Amino acid sequence: MTLERDASAPPVLIVGSMAFDDLDLPSGPARNIVGGSATYAGLAAALYAPVQIVAVVGADFPADAIGMLESRGVDVSGIERAAGKTFRWAGRYSPNLASRETLDTQLNVFADFRPKLPETFRATKTLLLGNIHPALQLEVLAQTRSPDLVVADTMNFWISGEKKLLLEVLAKVDVLVVNDEEVRQLSEDHNLKRAAKAVLRMGPKRVVVKRGDAGAMLFDESGVFFAPAYPLETEVDPTGAGDTFAGAVMGFLARAQRTDSATFRQALLAGATIASFCVEGVGTSALADLTHQALAARLRELMGLLDTGAR
Amino acid sequence: MTLERDASAPPVLIVGSMAFDDLDLPSGPARNIVGGSATYAGLAAALYAPVQIVAVVGADFPADAIGMLESRGVDVSGIERAAGKTFRWAGRYSPNLASRETLDTQLNVFADFRPKLPETFRATKTLLLGNIHPALQLEVLAQTRSPDLVVADTMNFWISGEKKLLLEVLAKVDVLVVNDEEVRQLSEDHNLKRAAKAVLRMGPKRVVVKRGDAGAMLFDESGVFFAPAYPLETEVDPTGAGDTFAGAVMGFLARAQRTDSATFRQALLAGATIASFCVEGVGTSALADLTHQALAARLRELMGLLDTGAR
Repeated sequence: MTLERDASAPPVLIVGSMAFDDLDLPSGPARNIVGGSATYAGLAAALYAPVQIVAVVGADFPADAIGMLESRGVDVSGIERAAGKTFRWAGRYSPNLASRETLDTQLNVFADFRPKLPETFRATKTLLLGNIHPALQLEVLAQTRSPDLVVADTMNFWISGEKKLLLEVLAKVDVLVVNDEEVRQLSEDHNLKRAAKAVLRMGPKRVVVKRGDAGAMLFDESGVFFAPAYPLETEVDPTGAGDTFAGAVMGFLARAQRTDSATFRQALLAGATIASFCVEGVGTSALADLTHQALAARLRELMGLLDTGAR
Repeated sequence: MTLERDASAPPVLIVGSMAFDDLDLPSGPARNIVGGSATYAGLAAALYAPVQIVAVVGADFPADAIGMLESRGVDVSGIERAAGKTFRWAGRYSPNLASRETLDTQLNVFADFRPKLPETFRATKTLLLGNIHPALQLEVLAQTRSPDLVVADTMNFWISGEKKLLLEVLAKVDVLVVNDEEVRQLSEDHNLKRAAKAVLRMGPKRVVVKRGDAGAMLFDESGVFFAPAYPLETEVDPTGAGDTFAGAVMGFLARAQRTDSATFRQALLAGATIASFCVEGVGTSALADLTHQALAARLRELMGLLDTGAR
């Protein structure tokens, strides 16, 4: 199930945020780190397939960060450069990285973000709707021409504040990727399996529940699949690991040109593996350095975690 | 890998507690519930192999609870009946069962427990040292004749208060079964993989880390294995699930008469499955009602969670 990047694979369209992050990590402070969900997801998806990003940055966003994405096969023509400052997030992690608190959020140009898909992006078949306002997710959907696979992310803020619009989104997407707290909040059920089944009734054919270092679970009509997190000995910065996971899953599926349950299971394992690399460096640094050789080796190791020894 | 009980398999010797539990569950209060680590572990192990229990109960312990164990193939000749009251624990679970607080602990006859192995138990090859004082675990070991497999449990109380004796125990056992917080505390390392590796250096050849509904992990020389928890839709009472898991693993290994890594991985899956049944009823009720047919069906389902779809 190891896949090399295929530059001729159908592209993955990712709509999300691009940001500067100011991180207080156990290893020390890290300032002005280029991040955002579209950056992490785009880099991860680009390991397998061409990527198109739709996002907004401010006048202060470094050209070489966009150049880095371009050099990896990301079509950056949908990244709008607006007057003003780039979205900025500041957070502090606990010493064991198990939790974090938001210190500051400055939406800046992201506050007025209205995603506009370049004409060349509208026919894209594989779409990742990053964690943006559900109204904007609907606007993006309205600009596309019948994509084959739409995967959406969301967060507690939209679940509590924009539930009606979010339900409209859910009725139109194939897959929801959220964390365990979000699936509980969305379904108003603390039991994870019942919660996932409730979300399946809201529209998506599959629900992927991210559980951090406890792995990720896939719920669909073929049952439940468990992708463990790769057990790391060196954890540096979990920022963007969830977006990396989602992006990698999208890239894997686009590259495989299949979205059946077995391929989805393999995509989750690839996503868990790539997300583990993300955590090993500050920001996107470890992800940017990732080779297919290192990825293949760790993916084999991760699959060993599921090897029941039954022959 | 489905195994029926084999009454001619080598027995599992379990040393631990027998208790009354007073539980405040989301489903309501449950009082005078027969519990204790040896009870849960014994019932679980007896699904696969003969079991011998060494424990102490008070004059108030019901004869029919001991009769129930006996009817399932547990040799109860090592259960001492002392003058006084049985060990009693009272706890309250949070509404989502994710956490619990101890309301009361009355050691009673358990305070003076000095395990005495009946002569017929001393040659037993498979030994589970339940969570008792490390000095008592050492006394038990001294009464055995070179068992092939010794598995030990412990808890935060002994890790912080009796570390030196506990390290003596660890130098003499093959496997440590603990939860994630305990392995972190024992190793003084918050990183789970590094923590497990540190414990492996203390003596055991394998470390099993229980993570509740996030499953269990096996660390040994063959790497890491991940046994997911079976995703339950109805969770009633998690009391004893960890002991059930450990007992089931012991029974499976005794029944298989193998302790290689592949068999251990399968034992963990059996343990996770049987522990899931435990959670579905108050006290040992669901465990006591468990049939091999239901066990086999759920075990197949659990293995489906690890099915990567790769053919």
